[in-house]
Amino acid sequence: MIYKNNESVVLGVDIGGTNTVYGIVGKDGNIYKHQTMDTDGSLSASNLVDRINLSVDKFLRKNKKMEIVGVGIGAPNGNHFTGVIEDPPNLNWGKVNIVDLFKTKYDVKIVLTNDANAAALGEKCYGLAREMDDFILITLGTGLGSGIFSGGKLVYGHDGFAGEMGHMVIDSKGRDCNCGNQGCLESYVSANGIKKTIEVLFKKYPDDKLLNQIRIKGMDGELLDNEFDCGNQMAGKIYEITGDSLGLGLAQAATLLNPEAFIFYGGISKAGDRILKFAKRSMDNHLLKVQSDTIKLLYSALPGGKAGVLGAASLIWSPM
Amino acid sequence: MIYKNNESVVLGVDIGGTNTVYGIVGKDGNIYKHQTMDTDGSLSASNLVDRINLSVDKFLRKNKKMEIVGVGIGAPNGNHFTGVIEDPPNLNWGKVNIVDLFKTKYDVKIVLTNDANAAALGEKCYGLAREMDDFILITLGTGLGSGIFSGGKLVYGHDGFAGEMGHMVIDSKGRDCNCGNQGCLESYVSANGIKKTIEVLFKKYPDDKLLNQIRIKGMDGELLDNEFDCGNQMAGKIYEITGDSLGLGLAQAATLLNPEAFIFYGGISKAGDRILKFAKRSMDNHLLKVQSDTIKLLYSALPGGKAGVLGAASLIWSPM
Repeated sequence: MIYKNNESVVLGVDIGGTNTVYGIVGKDGNIYKHQTMDTDGSLSASNLVDRINLSVDKFLRKNKKMEIVGVGIGAPNGNHFTGVIEDPPNLNWGKVNIVDLFKTKYDVKIVLTNDANAAALGEKCYGLAREMDDFILITLGTGLGSGIFSGGKLVYGHDGFAGEMGHMVIDSKGRDCNCGNQGCLESYVSANGIKKTIEVLFKKYPDDKLLNQIRIKGMDGELLDNEFDCGNQMAGKIYEITGDSLGLGLAQAATLLNPEAFIFYGGISKAGDRILKFAKRSMDNHLLKVQSDTIKLLYSALPGGKAGVLGAASLIWSPM
Repeated sequence: MIYKNNESVVLGVDIGGTNTVYGIVGKDGNIYKHQTMDTDGSLSASNLVDRINLSVDKFLRKNKKMEIVGVGIGAPNGNHFTGVIEDPPNLNWGKVNIVDLFKTKYDVKIVLTNDANAAALGEKCYGLAREMDDFILITLGTGLGSGIFSGGKLVYGHDGFAGEMGHMVIDSKGRDCNCGNQGCLESYVSANGIKKTIEVLFKKYPDDKLLNQIRIKGMDGELLDNEFDCGNQMAGKIYEITGDSLGLGLAQAATLLNPEAFIFYGGISKAGDRILKFAKRSMDNHLLKVQSDTIKLLYSALPGGKAGVLGAASLIWSPM
C-alpha cells in the first residue's frame, strides 16, 4: 500500500438490491480498499451502515494517515436533493434518509444520488466519457436505469427525479410495467423485459425448444447468447424485439437531448452487439435525418464492481 | 424615446416562415424599436438581411447615441454551433450561413439559435421562467418546437440538434410525419396534426357537420374553440385526441428531464385549457407516481411578436 502522508480519501458506497460495495478512493481514482458485502435488505438500513462503518474503521486503523473527507453514495431511487432512498426495489426499507444515517458515523460532506447517476459520474470522471459533455449512461440489469449528462453537467431535474428512462413510455398501449403504467421501456429492455418477451413468444410458439428450455430452467443470458451465435431463430427474434424496443427509446431520448453517445453498463449489456446492432438500426430509423447515424453506442470500460464506487466517490471529488 | 448617452443595444431578429420581426433591445429588455416585415422566402436570405439592415440604419440615424453591440438571431432549424439555418420549412433557402450574412453588415458578436430555443431564452430572461432552472418551452403553431432548460442552462446537445420534441416518436406505428418518420408528436399536436386528426375522424364520421364545415373552409381554430365551448362532441373529440397525444409526449420528456413546468407559446396554444386539461390528465397517467401531479402546465406571458425578439436579444445579453 503506497500513499502520501495525511492523504485525503473518500468513502464511495454503491448500494445494490443484493450486494453493497464500498471503496476507499483517492482523488486520482485510485481505489485503496474495495469491499463487497451482502446488502441484506431484510435488516434495516442502519444495520448496513453499521457494518460498513466497522469494516472501514478496521481498514483505517491499519492506515492511520488516511483521512476520510467525504462520503458519496449511489443507491437505487436515491434522491440527490433530499438524501432519501425512496422505496428501493428488493429492499424492505421504505423511505430512509441514508445521508442522516451516515452522518451519525462521519462528520464530513455526505452526498447521495441514484445508482445510474453514480455510474454516469464514474464514466465522466474515470471512464469513456472523460471528454464528453453530452452523453447518456444506461444500466441494463433486472431493470433499466439511466444517468444523463447535458452540457457537462449531470441532469437532476427540478425534484431530483430526472433520468428515469426505464419508465419512459415507448408504447402507450403496450405491456404492463411493474410501476403500474403501460409500455415503459424497461418492460421490454431489461432482464425482466426479456422474460416478458419470452412469455409473449411462448404463447405464439408453444412448441419451440429454446423457449421451453428457458421457461423450465429460468432466464439464462449465456444460453441465449450461445443459441443466438449458433443461428437459433428464436434467440434472434428475442434479441431483435429487445433491440428494436431499445432503439425506439434511444431515439426518443436523443431527439430531445442530442447526445454524443449512449454508454451501456451492467449485466445484460454483456449480450452486447447481439442486441445493440438491432438497437442501432431501430434508433437511426426513428431519428430525424440530421441526427441519424451520428450517435455512438458504446460499452462502459470501467471494471464491473468498481464503476459504482468510483462514481459515488466522484460525488465528492468532482461534484457536477 | 428616452435613453442614456451612448447606450449599448442589441439587434434581436426572429425569422419566421412568413414574417420576420426585429427589435432594438436594451439590456433591461426594453424594446426601443420593433418592426415586422415579410420574410419573403422566395427571395434570398441576403435580401432579407439587406432589408433588415436598411431599416435598422434608418432608425440608428435618428438615434445616433445607440450602439449595436451584438446581433442575436432565432430561426427555424437555426444551428447554434454552425451559424447555419438548415433547410428551414416554408423558405427556399437550402442551407444558409446567416451569421456570415449578418457579419457583412455588423462587426459585432453574432449568435444564432433555433426559434424555440430563442423563445425559451426569452421566457428565462424576461418571462415566467425567471426563477426556474428546469423547464421546457413548447411552441405550438404549424409545427411543434421546443427549447429545454436543464440546471439553468439551455440544452443544445452535442451537435446543436437538441430539443426536437416535435419529432419525438409517440407511436412507432402511427401517422406519417412530414419528416419522413412515423408517429412523431408533431403529427398529432400542431395545426398540421389537428388537420390530420380531422381527416382521420372524417373517414369515420363522413356526415358530421363540423368536420364537413372545416374541410370546406379550412382549419379554423376560433370555430373549433367556439364549438368546443358550446359542447359540440366532435370538437371535444378533436381536442381530446390532441391533448391525449400531447400528454404522452410531455410524460416522455418529463420522465427524462423532470422539469418544473412546461410553458406553451404560439398560435394554437390559444386553444388553452381546452387542450391542456386532456394533456394534463394524460401526462399524469403516463408518469411514475413520484412525478405525477407535480409538473405545471403554463402559458407564456410574453407578448406575441416580442418574445422571439427578446429571446434572440438574450443570446447576446445573457448567454446561457
